[in-house]
Amino acid sequence: MTIELCYKPIAGRSRYEDLIKRRCYKPAGHTGKCEEFPYLAHLKQVAPRVEAKIKRDATKTTGAAWKSDDAGPNRIDRWVMLLPDDELHSRFGINIAAMKPQVQAKLREKAATYEDCMEVAAKLALNVYQMRNAPPAPPEILQYLEARFDAFRPNSTRCIVCRDHLDFKLFENAQRGRAHIETAHANPRMHNPDNVGFAHRECNIAQGSLSLQDFYDWIRSIVARVDAHLS
Amino acid sequence: MTIELCYKPIAGRSRYEDLIKRRCYKPAGHTGKCEEFPYLAHLKQVAPRVEAKIKRDATKTTGAAWKSDDAGPNRIDRWVMLLPDDELHSRFGINIAAMKPQVQAKLREKAATYEDCMEVAAKLALNVYQMRNAPPAPPEILQYLEARFDAFRPNSTRCIVCRDHLDFKLFENAQRGRAHIETAHANPRMHNPDNVGFAHRECNIAQGSLSLQDFYDWIRSIVARVDAHLS
Ligand SMILES: [Zn+2]
Ligand SMILES: [Zn+2]
Ligand SMILES: [Zn+2]
Ligand SMILES: [Zn+2]
Repeated sequence: MTIELCYKPIAGRSRYEDLIKRRCYKPAGHTGKCEEFPYLAHLKQVAPRVEAKIKRDATKTTGAAWKSDDAGPNRIDRWVMLLPDDELHSRFGINIAAMKPQVQAKLREKAATYEDCMEVAAKLALNVYQMRNAPPAPPEILQYLEARFDAFRPNSTRCIVCRDHLDFKLFENAQRGRAHIETAHANPRMHNPDNVGFAHRECNIAQGSLSLQDFYDWIRSIVARVDAHLS
Repeated sequence: MTIELCYKPIAGRSRYEDLIKRRCYKPAGHTGKCEEFPYLAHLKQVAPRVEAKIKRDATKTTGAAWKSDDAGPNRIDRWVMLLPDDELHSRFGINIAAMKPQVQAKLREKAATYEDCMEVAAKLALNVYQMRNAPPAPPEILQYLEARFDAFRPNSTRCIVCRDHLDFKLFENAQRGRAHIETAHANPRMHNPDNVGFAHRECNIAQGSLSLQDFYDWIRSIVARVDAHLS
């Protein structure tokens, strides 16, 4: 990161606020009020569902085995899942031991620090602006994201699974409850910017719980068996 | 088929009985009472869940958008879905027009004649007995299935998607509500014995709504892009 961030603490509204300090991610010495997601201001105007998706996927777990009154049902801040089981139970009434082993594993692999989640959110915003047919980013947001990551490369965002280009329009075509573009992980057990990106819904489903490396090995073995069978 | 079947009508108990005549699938001239699934008698003893799965997958639609009181929730005889929309509505209270387009399409593609469903059931039974570690079939069932299909080839059943061998033990390891082996279709819109087989759950999910041909084309294109990217 070649930019210094303000990083002053700011107040949040979730029930888990005493676990972490939310921070200001504006450049150090900025004018105006501190903000956690300054680089999402433009998307919030032109594509509010995409902006909400970035925040949600970066910071929340997905479908879980309990109802949470934090940010809608079945979603919980990822850093909460870093707590030991007994603290989850005594502080937040989340009884991991009572859940099925697969559910436990799924929840545990969603765990991530606040800092990693915030890195992921910024990376996803950059990925959105680099999609085909993305709305053009305002210069100050472009500069900010370039300072935090690499030079801006228009039309460069690809599905991390099938490596084909992603088109921003796929967000707009999303059916209710069924996104055509999903946030995906090269290794499903690591939530950090190097490991996160967007994928077609079908690609994300096909990858399942495999790492991308294992997924590619698997489909190569299928192609090999199909070819052997056909010859 | 090199065997003549009895084919006498037998009584069924579903609410859709006046749509089709259920038939006896014992050999013509058999002794004892007529039966619809004579070749499942042994599996019913040694692997009742597998026997129930064959009957269910061969003859019923899967998850649907209404509750049916026929054979459990969300399952309906596949041949019912051959009826025109107005008959579905007036006779069985199934209002296709009120469903979302994707649900309509899913239901319509499950439609199949009674005869095709019965062929599929027998073919699935043969596939089960040809799995690795399958219980040995009684000679009379083996003879019957060989007469209806091809010569018995032990250990020959493969996942129709990844073409790797399937092990009967995967049925036993199935978690509640999550089969490790699923019934799959080479072309999801055709329910007949040439087009149906078993697949790993992960493989069936990865195939999604694609035909196998399109699935293989798709994963070949992924491998090609991955290779291009790596070189
Ligand atoms: Zn600040
Ligand atoms: Zn893709
Ligand atoms: Zn008979
Ligand atoms: Zn398979």
